[in-house]
Amino acid sequence: QDAVRAEPVRRPAAVSRSGRGLCGFGLFLEHQVQRGFKWDGSGLQFNWHPVLMTTGLVVLYGYGSVVYRVPFTWGQSKLPWKLLHAGLMLLALLLSVVGLCAVFGNHNKNHIPNLYSLHSWIGLTAVILFALQWVAGFAGFLLPFSPLSFRKLLKPFHVWLGGSILTLSVAACISGINEKLFFVLKGDNHTASYSNLPPEAVHANSLGVLIVAFGLVVLRILTNKSWQRPEPDQQETAYTVGKCLRLIKMWKSLSDGRLE
Amino acid sequence: QDAVRAEPVRRPAAVSRSGRGLCGFGLFLEHQVQRGFKWDGSGLQFNWHPVLMTTGLVVLYGYGSVVYRVPFTWGQSKLPWKLLHAGLMLLALLLSVVGLCAVFGNHNKNHIPNLYSLHSWIGLTAVILFALQWVAGFAGFLLPFSPLSFRKLLKPFHVWLGGSILTLSVAACISGINEKLFFVLKGDNHTASYSNLPPEAVHANSLGVLIVAFGLVVLRILTNKSWQRPEPDQQETAYTVGKCLRLIKMWKSLSDGRLE
Repeated sequence: QDAVRAEPVRRPAAVSRSGRGLCGFGLFLEHQVQRGFKWDGSGLQFNWHPVLMTTGLVVLYGYGSVVYRVPFTWGQSKLPWKLLHAGLMLLALLLSVVGLCAVFGNHNKNHIPNLYSLHSWIGLTAVILFALQWVAGFAGFLLPFSPLSFRKLLKPFHVWLGGSILTLSVAACISGINEKLFFVLKGDNHTASYSNLPPEAVHANSLGVLIVAFGLVVLRILTNKSWQRPEPDQQETAYTVGKCLRLIKMWKSLSDGRLE
Repeated sequence: QDAVRAEPVRRPAAVSRSGRGLCGFGLFLEHQVQRGFKWDGSGLQFNWHPVLMTTGLVVLYGYGSVVYRVPFTWGQSKLPWKLLHAGLMLLALLLSVVGLCAVFGNHNKNHIPNLYSLHSWIGLTAVILFALQWVAGFAGFLLPFSPLSFRKLLKPFHVWLGGSILTLSVAACISGINEKLFFVLKGDNHTASYSNLPPEAVHANSLGVLIVAFGLVVLRILTNKSWQRPEPDQQETAYTVGKCLRLIKMWKSLSDGRLE
């Protein structure tokens, strides 16, 4: 029994390492290949798009989704971990939205049409579902007056949609990296051809493979039954009534303090 | 309890309908847009690639993976369903391999390099893992001398890798459709531009969305605990010893019959 409970401790560490690797690798790649970032509508603004989408929709999303799978937290109150989950996911959502703004701004300034490619359809669906999921999760699991029956109904759907959004994100990342490499590496006077696999193509392909591997590890952690936080019904009720009221008071006193 | 058990009956029907829809839609799309199929190394040979990969790696793979989720079979012997699972997966694997041959043949004839794009890396990984998974599944779950301890060890890994291969397949399909549309719809004298979303772009994008939706429904069916076939250990042992011996005798008599 101890062996089963001890195993997951290593998994979030693995996710964390892969996440740092992915995020750092993406930044490195963008800096190396595209030489920097700006917010002026140019190609340098576009460079924010892959970095922010990967960091938000894959890396932070991956971290946020496995928060309840850390076994030493299972004996503790769930509320701080709910707040961490919601907070990480909100940050992930904000980064994704800024990442979308980066590409829309770049397209609009250069009169490039938006939202025609399959990559954009899948990616935008992922972000819209993510936003809806966050709002439904906040209303269902954090607002104190949300009834227990609604929470029970919402939870399996929330878990499934969470995994589905990650799958959509991974598919969007792969198609996005693939399409960008075909755009950039045309094999003309300025660039090598993608088909000759120059170093930047190998790097970006490898980033794609890492993104898929990270996504599959996260999905594995999420679906494994023995890594799921034990949830007695009474405990859930206790959060609803008592702790969320305390949370509202805490928020209120914090916002009062800011307004003074 | 009855409600929980009754629900999955509708799901495989839904998978079946979406599967027929996907397969039919892909064939229709290819016939309409590319005007037919040949096996002569030309672009008409390439046309087999998306149809066979989608039919094999997504549609048949999806059918094959939910075989154990049909509740009326839970009271029956598992062996015929194992054979159906292995058979559908073998057919799916063969179609995928022929689909790969189609694109390699087309590339080689036209001196187009192979295996440089991220799409090809992800897609080939999916097919290689699928082949390894099929061999391991056959050796572990169908050969009568495979020990119960090995089966128990293999099963959760087999289930996870199964879902992962489907995720890889979906990512490969999305990136493949996306890249093909950029290749074909260049907006020159012969074709419309992808960015103007001509009808064939809308069709192919919609096929991509359908593939993702189908994949997510299959993954939902696979991960839902209440839809998993109840498996007492004794039952598993009974398959190992008795029924698989009968299977070998059946095979032997069949092959003797063919040799005569």
